Amino acid sequence: MAPIKSWLAIPPESDFSLSNIPFGIITSRNSRDQKRPAVAIGDHVLDLLAFSQAKGFSGLPSIEKHIDVFAQPSLNAFAALGRPVHKEVRAYLQEVFSESGKHASVLKDNEELKKNALLKKEDTKTHLPMQIGDYTDFFAGINHAFNVGTMFRGPANALQPNYTHLPVGYHGRASSVVISGTPIRRPNGQILLDPTADPKVPTFGPCRRLDIELELGCFLCKPNAMGEPIKIADADQHIFGYVLMNDWSARDIQTWEYVPLGPFNAKNFGTSISAWVVLADALEPFRTPKLQNETKILPHLQEKREDSIYDIRLEVDLTTPDGATTTISKTSGKNLLWSFPQMIAHHTSGGCPMAVGDLLGSGTISGKSEGGGDLGSMLEMNWGGKKDIMLAGMDTRKFLKDGDVVTIRGACGEDGERVGFGVCEGQIESAVNF
Amino acid sequence: MAPIKSWLAIPPESDFSLSNIPFGIITSRNSRDQKRPAVAIGDHVLDLLAFSQAKGFSGLPSIEKHIDVFAQPSLNAFAALGRPVHKEVRAYLQEVFSESGKHASVLKDNEELKKNALLKKEDTKTHLPMQIGDYTDFFAGINHAFNVGTMFRGPANALQPNYTHLPVGYHGRASSVVISGTPIRRPNGQILLDPTADPKVPTFGPCRRLDIELELGCFLCKPNAMGEPIKIADADQHIFGYVLMNDWSARDIQTWEYVPLGPFNAKNFGTSISAWVVLADALEPFRTPKLQNETKILPHLQEKREDSIYDIRLEVDLTTPDGATTTISKTSGKNLLWSFPQMIAHHTSGGCPMAVGDLLGSGTISGKSEGGGDLGSMLEMNWGGKKDIMLAGMDTRKFLKDGDVVTIRGACGEDGERVGFGVCEGQIESAVNF
Repeated sequence: MAPIKSWLAIPPESDFSLSNIPFGIITSRNSRDQKRPAVAIGDHVLDLLAFSQAKGFSGLPSIEKHIDVFAQPSLNAFAALGRPVHKEVRAYLQEVFSESGKHASVLKDNEELKKNALLKKEDTKTHLPMQIGDYTDFFAGINHAFNVGTMFRGPANALQPNYTHLPVGYHGRASSVVISGTPIRRPNGQILLDPTADPKVPTFGPCRRLDIELELGCFLCKPNAMGEPIKIADADQHIFGYVLMNDWSARDIQTWEYVPLGPFNAKNFGTSISAWVVLADALEPFRTPKLQNETKILPHLQEKREDSIYDIRLEVDLTTPDGATTTISKTSGKNLLWSFPQMIAHHTSGGCPMAVGDLLGSGTISGKSEGGGDLGSMLEMNWGGKKDIMLAGMDTRKFLKDGDVVTIRGACGEDGERVGFGVCEGQIESAVNF
Repeated sequence: MAPIKSWLAIPPESDFSLSNIPFGIITSRNSRDQKRPAVAIGDHVLDLLAFSQAKGFSGLPSIEKHIDVFAQPSLNAFAALGRPVHKEVRAYLQEVFSESGKHASVLKDNEELKKNALLKKEDTKTHLPMQIGDYTDFFAGINHAFNVGTMFRGPANALQPNYTHLPVGYHGRASSVVISGTPIRRPNGQILLDPTADPKVPTFGPCRRLDIELELGCFLCKPNAMGEPIKIADADQHIFGYVLMNDWSARDIQTWEYVPLGPFNAKNFGTSISAWVVLADALEPFRTPKLQNETKILPHLQEKREDSIYDIRLEVDLTTPDGATTTISKTSGKNLLWSFPQMIAHHTSGGCPMAVGDLLGSGTISGKSEGGGDLGSMLEMNWGGKKDIMLAGMDTRKFLKDGDVVTIRGACGEDGERVGFGVCEGQIESAVNF
């Protein structure tokens, strides 16, 4: 497929080519700080409230009757219209921006509308795209699960017996999900400084093992009633789109607190997501098979198609307070044993109700290269604290220091037709004094 | 304190005496199905929207300017006004209903208002009282933790090393919290029928070990910003009130899924709460010391007062499909090692943001009597499946059967001035056919 040409100048390296059309929530000077839906296109943002109010959607009658969804402060109402509508709106906006499409004149030839609705990205501010009811984090990156399990139990028992039978997950904290750019304050917590002491006596203070987790996030667009599972064959229709996610983790707090009920304060001080939701349809060309599962899985998790995940190029940059940036990981979204449709089918198999705007995290995504340059957490990069992570400028890290900035990027496709996510970024602030 | 006399006939055994004044959300024929706040009083319910619109609060200027909070479909806006306002409103309504209070004539002598706002309880329907952002379930009932730990690891290692240092908890699923009376469908899930087999191979089907958990729930009325912990001395001001909770649990699903990230589908198919939020102020007279903790706890969890929990009489009835009811547990809310202020201080110690309407569960409340008639879960009553629970009519249970109804009750104080919760009830429906 050749890149679609646009009348708007879109840098070829942009994540937001005409092949993408991701949705987000913005404010701008025009909007008088009223949050509204928008799409990102190259270095611009189309304000969908301004666009729809000026009859920008008059060429698409199916959305015209629903244009109140663009007057909402989150994408939930738009998402709830369902995947066929998302597809139509995306295709329509591609035509609006294309050089010679059927609807190319709607914006191109309307200077007033361009002035009101087509904003420079730097003149806008992004906000959480969805109102998140519940957030669940899975553990579907098998290389990460294997690496961490190996550190604690050796390679023979690295994966728990349930791991290949079901997508292991836990309920996360929806209130601590924040938009890319939000600073992350180092948490205080109970920490066991000497794990060999008997009895074990914790201290309270700033986390000393502050880590990242490179993940993909998935937003839902269709609810199910309590007691009514979503069948695996239907799960795709419940997926609105995807974001990058950094599930910041306090490893020392986690070690002390997590038995027997799982991670808690180690994970609820901040989870960052990228601003622009890449629609499920935009990722269709980048499907790839998930990792081979040697286990015969039960029928309710069996998918018709094997290519139920996406080959998304992922990378993690670490910028130290002196400004030196090092790419500490390059990997791919294909390193998952379980797909999001499988996660949804498992999550609801007992009847758990899910809502529009619910967020699912993939779990940490690591590759399994020899060199280890494709790992999704610092815990794996430093192999449980045993190795230094080498940075530019002769610097090293085991875990994050105050002032460090972590930037996750992700994209599919070639320049000129990239379907990318922009960045998921956060800077570490020093802990509160207790 | 002698009971306050009312001009309204209130049955002496009512949970909703004039000493209580709990808040909830109702619909009625009057309300044309529009949800609105109400208080329960004896066998009646006062519709606060109707009452406030008819100037019922004209004697309380501090609330008059906020009466839009009574036009909301949840109690969140009222809760957000803060504890001093809840206290004033409760005291005012006590006067409105008292035989000779300063504001006794407001309702007593206004037939039109009585007709519109004072409804028979059976003519109303209750709904979830709060819009719940996040729900967290703790494990603060030490007798339960000890009993369950003993089954798995013996009494010497029953409690994990962290247990007496911090209130262990996990993030629950807010979307599956339902109001008392909502049927609970038996979940399907992955179950290990033969835990000794090697390799372990699960089957998928209806839960065979469906259990209850007797808990107290606590609703918050004051938020904290991300990164800003709630200090233990301030935590009380964040508490709106309390409800009864049944955290239905699928023990067989839990056993297979919970390592290493904690309970998931075993807990997210339904959590029932009672309809009426008993204000924190109404429970003040029933404070009692929490259980003795031999461990020296860290300063951020140290409370000034020892009596930071409540002596609430709790009981659990099981009604079988043939209609026979057995009281299977009688215990007290005082069986907690950690108070709700401690849970809040711990939860936010790393900076986790909490919102108005967030719900905290205490964890299962069990006593430690010789006879075992004071246990909060069937898992403990049947001692890991080894004993039958004896029921009326020569019936027995180990876990719940389809059609069983579980009813939790809770109350403080003597007849005529009881501060009670009403019921938290649910009936088991058979599992979905996959």
